[in-house]
Amino acid sequence: MPGAEIISQGDEVLTGQTLDTNAAWLAERLTALGFTVLRHTTVGDRRDDIREAVLAASQRAELCLCTGGLGPTEDDLTAEAVADAAGRTLIFDAEAMGQIEGMFARFGKPMPESNRKQAWFPQGALRLDNRWGTAPGFGLQVGPAWLLCLPGVPTEMRPMFEGVVVPVLHRRFSLRPGRLVTLRTAGIGESRLQQRIGPWRRREVTLGYRTMPPENQVKLRFPPDTADQEARAVAESLAARIGEAVFSIEGLGDPTGDLPSVTLGLLGARAQTVAVAEWGCGGRLCALLYDGVGAEDVLRGGRILGRGERATNLPSDAAPVSEAAARALAEDALVASGATYGLALTVVADPDLHGSQRGSGSAHVALAGCGGTQHRPFQVAGSRSLIRTLAAGAAVDFLRRQLLRG
Amino acid sequence: MPGAEIISQGDEVLTGQTLDTNAAWLAERLTALGFTVLRHTTVGDRRDDIREAVLAASQRAELCLCTGGLGPTEDDLTAEAVADAAGRTLIFDAEAMGQIEGMFARFGKPMPESNRKQAWFPQGALRLDNRWGTAPGFGLQVGPAWLLCLPGVPTEMRPMFEGVVVPVLHRRFSLRPGRLVTLRTAGIGESRLQQRIGPWRRREVTLGYRTMPPENQVKLRFPPDTADQEARAVAESLAARIGEAVFSIEGLGDPTGDLPSVTLGLLGARAQTVAVAEWGCGGRLCALLYDGVGAEDVLRGGRILGRGERATNLPSDAAPVSEAAARALAEDALVASGATYGLALTVVADPDLHGSQRGSGSAHVALAGCGGTQHRPFQVAGSRSLIRTLAAGAAVDFLRRQLLRG
Repeated sequence: MPGAEIISQGDEVLTGQTLDTNAAWLAERLTALGFTVLRHTTVGDRRDDIREAVLAASQRAELCLCTGGLGPTEDDLTAEAVADAAGRTLIFDAEAMGQIEGMFARFGKPMPESNRKQAWFPQGALRLDNRWGTAPGFGLQVGPAWLLCLPGVPTEMRPMFEGVVVPVLHRRFSLRPGRLVTLRTAGIGESRLQQRIGPWRRREVTLGYRTMPPENQVKLRFPPDTADQEARAVAESLAARIGEAVFSIEGLGDPTGDLPSVTLGLLGARAQTVAVAEWGCGGRLCALLYDGVGAEDVLRGGRILGRGERATNLPSDAAPVSEAAARALAEDALVASGATYGLALTVVADPDLHGSQRGSGSAHVALAGCGGTQHRPFQVAGSRSLIRTLAAGAAVDFLRRQLLRG
Repeated sequence: MPGAEIISQGDEVLTGQTLDTNAAWLAERLTALGFTVLRHTTVGDRRDDIREAVLAASQRAELCLCTGGLGPTEDDLTAEAVADAAGRTLIFDAEAMGQIEGMFARFGKPMPESNRKQAWFPQGALRLDNRWGTAPGFGLQVGPAWLLCLPGVPTEMRPMFEGVVVPVLHRRFSLRPGRLVTLRTAGIGESRLQQRIGPWRRREVTLGYRTMPPENQVKLRFPPDTADQEARAVAESLAARIGEAVFSIEGLGDPTGDLPSVTLGLLGARAQTVAVAEWGCGGRLCALLYDGVGAEDVLRGGRILGRGERATNLPSDAAPVSEAAARALAEDALVASGATYGLALTVVADPDLHGSQRGSGSAHVALAGCGGTQHRPFQVAGSRSLIRTLAAGAAVDFLRRQLLRG
């Protein structure tokens, strides 16, 4: 597989003022296309540093992908630095100038003189048109490597990569992309997931784990040209080891989705609805469910109780986070909404937990329906924010599992 | 100012499976402490690449900060690679071993044999204790540079940096930190913010912008030893140009907070309370407010309406996203809760907006109190998720501005 390096530039990224999401995004896309990503480098807006980083990367990798430094200001030095590295001069591209002027004309604004700078490219460069902003990119051979420069603004960089760069990469490189299959799980921790899978090893398939609370993923990377049925057989045998924690498998061509969307989908398929109530979870359960695909069709309202609020039929001596409270809230939600189910979550975190401190949280989830009310107590650990995210995820997962059984 | 480089390692970061938030966090902290960050480099779990990156960085910077690769598995190669780079052997540290065993004992788990690996350090290294996990870090002179290795897990790395590393840095380097003052604003876009500030230039103060929806920040970096009253005068003169969009100024020693916390603080200071209702915003308004400091004391419940739900007194021909709907919802919340205010938000996004597509959203916010109901219509643009985040922020900001006036 051809090697690739990613170079990000800009003082904002270097000083941590801006989080560099481009590097991770490009790394994932390049890996999926069939490159081996070797290194990322971030340098500031200094011409010598950019030139040096480009030259070093061009000696190690067959493809160098640079982002940033194509803007109209004095700080934007990519074209100059790359021309230095390649031993070229900059030349003016009248067609690019026309495109930039056209962009301003469409927005009905006069073009500042400084934007003329964006029409200068190293001699011999392949211009990469930017229909999403004013900064065109370019490609150029630098020593043994092919170098591509793209703007740093993600809303310009990403569509340019997909629409303009990917076809160029397929022409220039012989790419045999691997195949990625992701088992998405909920309600199981990473260590228990590893235990269930056990000492699994299969020639040429790499297995990785990724945590995206409240979800844990198992990633299987297959070699190029793996047959559909082989990938499916491997993925399904692993899914069987994990059990019902697997809520979705991505990369086999089946419809997939995140935990709330899959859960809402189960409800939608049965023409059922749910109303939600939560205490102590900061609105996370409602927010999680309402962000799911299909939320509008199956959710029948959410209620976030204030500290002093209680469910109607809760005995006055019951704690707000308790089995009794969760059951009473779920039944309230069911009755008040007329939905098929009432789902309730009550959570309490360590009282002295602030900021990034870690502690534990106790939670109760209950699901009321015409057949009665199911309940489960559980514990989660982390910062207050993570406790809430995990508790909200666990409540959605409880609903999903009850639906699978019912 | 001494130069610093940051090295991140791990195949997960290199392939984009994990977003590297450590580099940006460390860059910001190092800059604040008085270092000039020169470069970030990310390499995979390959011993030669790590050694090469460490050696190259040690020739350019006085401080190299590495994260990752200190775990117990075969892939964790930092200690070996750094020992190579420094021409040292690895030696066993019995005290570190005792700490790691104690960590497992506290969690009541047997220590896997593989964790013994974490007690081996390059000869002559300064051990950096990790009270937040099992991987101790270490510091070592490598050629002309001082190298620090920390675990890659952010919940271990960050407290170790603050509690263990910062004192070491102050002993080893003569640091004269600049001073950062941040004007936090809401309800104003970045371009309008720049217009209000105008052509502002002041010798030795750098001005930057940062967007963290729903908030826009103006960052002022003052040189070391700037007097308190000088920083305050500059910050306040800029804040005056911006107007009431500034909800908090950080870095002058005054109490500060994020938008919901500041808004909740205004309510708390008046012993007032608020109940919240939202339609079409996916629970974001409730989640935003309930995450604020002081939420438990001033919030009197939240209600997320399902698609078919309506406020009690809303005429049947009124649209769910309209001035009438927002007013009726706010009045319902006020009456049902007995709070001082009822705050309501209704939002609708372009109907065909999915995933990362961008479109626009219409919203209405209303605040009901004993003096009547205030209302404001507004538009926001972005992905569906960003529209909801911005609308929720605008609703909180509307409450804040009404409180300032009332």
